Amino acid sequence: MLSNIRIVLVQTYHPGNIGASARAMKTMGLSDLVLVNPRQFPDPEASRLAAGAEDLVANARVVASHEEAVSDCVQVVGASARLRSLPLPHFDEPDEMARELVEQARHDPVALVFGRERFGLTNDEIRCCSHQVSIPANPDYGILNLSQAVQVLAHELFTAWRRRPESGYRSALPTQERQPTREQLGHFQAHLSRVMQRSGFINQPHARTEAQLESLFARAQPSRRELSLLRGLLASLESHLPDS
Amino acid sequence: MLSNIRIVLVQTYHPGNIGASARAMKTMGLSDLVLVNPRQFPDPEASRLAAGAEDLVANARVVASHEEAVSDCVQVVGASARLRSLPLPHFDEPDEMARELVEQARHDPVALVFGRERFGLTNDEIRCCSHQVSIPANPDYGILNLSQAVQVLAHELFTAWRRRPESGYRSALPTQERQPTREQLGHFQAHLSRVMQRSGFINQPHARTEAQLESLFARAQPSRRELSLLRGLLASLESHLPDS
Repeated sequence: MLSNIRIVLVQTYHPGNIGASARAMKTMGLSDLVLVNPRQFPDPEASRLAAGAEDLVANARVVASHEEAVSDCVQVVGASARLRSLPLPHFDEPDEMARELVEQARHDPVALVFGRERFGLTNDEIRCCSHQVSIPANPDYGILNLSQAVQVLAHELFTAWRRRPESGYRSALPTQERQPTREQLGHFQAHLSRVMQRSGFINQPHARTEAQLESLFARAQPSRRELSLLRGLLASLESHLPDS
Repeated sequence: MLSNIRIVLVQTYHPGNIGASARAMKTMGLSDLVLVNPRQFPDPEASRLAAGAEDLVANARVVASHEEAVSDCVQVVGASARLRSLPLPHFDEPDEMARELVEQARHDPVALVFGRERFGLTNDEIRCCSHQVSIPANPDYGILNLSQAVQVLAHELFTAWRRRPESGYRSALPTQERQPTREQLGHFQAHLSRVMQRSGFINQPHARTEAQLESLFARAQPSRRELSLLRGLLASLESHLPDS
């Protein structure tokens, strides 16, 4: 699915932006990079900024026209800093765009097209797209660096793909600690209550104070190990308290 | 709300990353930048890559320790390439993190902390955070450039803020064209049907074919102007057809 998503960079001025875009792509599982008439490529700057994504730069296809870059695609989204007043369907939100592009990419190649650093895409190039999208930004300063725009939209594409049940993406979460049983929580609360009373913090069973502290600890969702540490701390404190 | 969100960069090695991060911040409405012990700052590279965000670089606060950077914050999220096995609450998803951080930022300062390019944050620095977050990425190559990571999370923060009703954010959408009335659509469908028959494309009223083409045009949601263009085209074609 992700392999069907092509990133097209049109007439990129700075080779460093090509490298940084390749890196952004690779971190988000994309690999199909096509360059339309880049000003200066190949170039050491492209390789340098690609970091571990040099393979994408090495395999990038270079073509002479926008049409050539996207002719086999079923959907072509033009990324533009500002939405043109062309009646081209536009996505209000990058995440909506990503969900639809990933859906289309299940069976056929699709493309996300970025323009020149200064001038973006020409109106003719936008017309060669099926949709346009822009990244909502600060109205006073909304122009992202080219490779940053690639990173943001690639992130949205990866997110859309991950969230599909068939992606099988497993996030690298730390192993979940075991949770205590209700009984173990009950023992802890009873222990805490006893220490509060024996310490003189509460003179008589004070349901409200106890309930507030109990709910704090419950909200913290202590693991079994943590509960056990708390019990140990309570026991050490308790050993210094006068017998009730 | 956004002004309450601080971006903290710890011991950044490349001054260019400071500039690019400042630019990323500004495009997403953030302005509070704090640098903990940057290796080389101030530096021309930082200003160069900041582009139009030089003001953020000029106003960046430089401090000697992580604690100093975040002591007044009510929530501190450490951005880490990999989630540590420390039992620190973690956000599975950047957008969840962003919604919660923006919520907390309504009343108090909060911080999003990024570590060194190579080594990220130390375990001690992670412990000074209230939460950790990582950007889900390609398991084979998941390390984003520092300023790219800032751009992605800043984008998520801006998105979370925009989507709150009180933000008042208005996206710069092109003006919506006027939609035709049901009656105008009906006239168009009758005209299309007439042309289909007179041209010999359908020999007799063929409900299915007509219905399929009608639904295609309906789905296209032509504006009034477009409908009018289509009517004009049908009229031109019709003028060449034999009288039925």
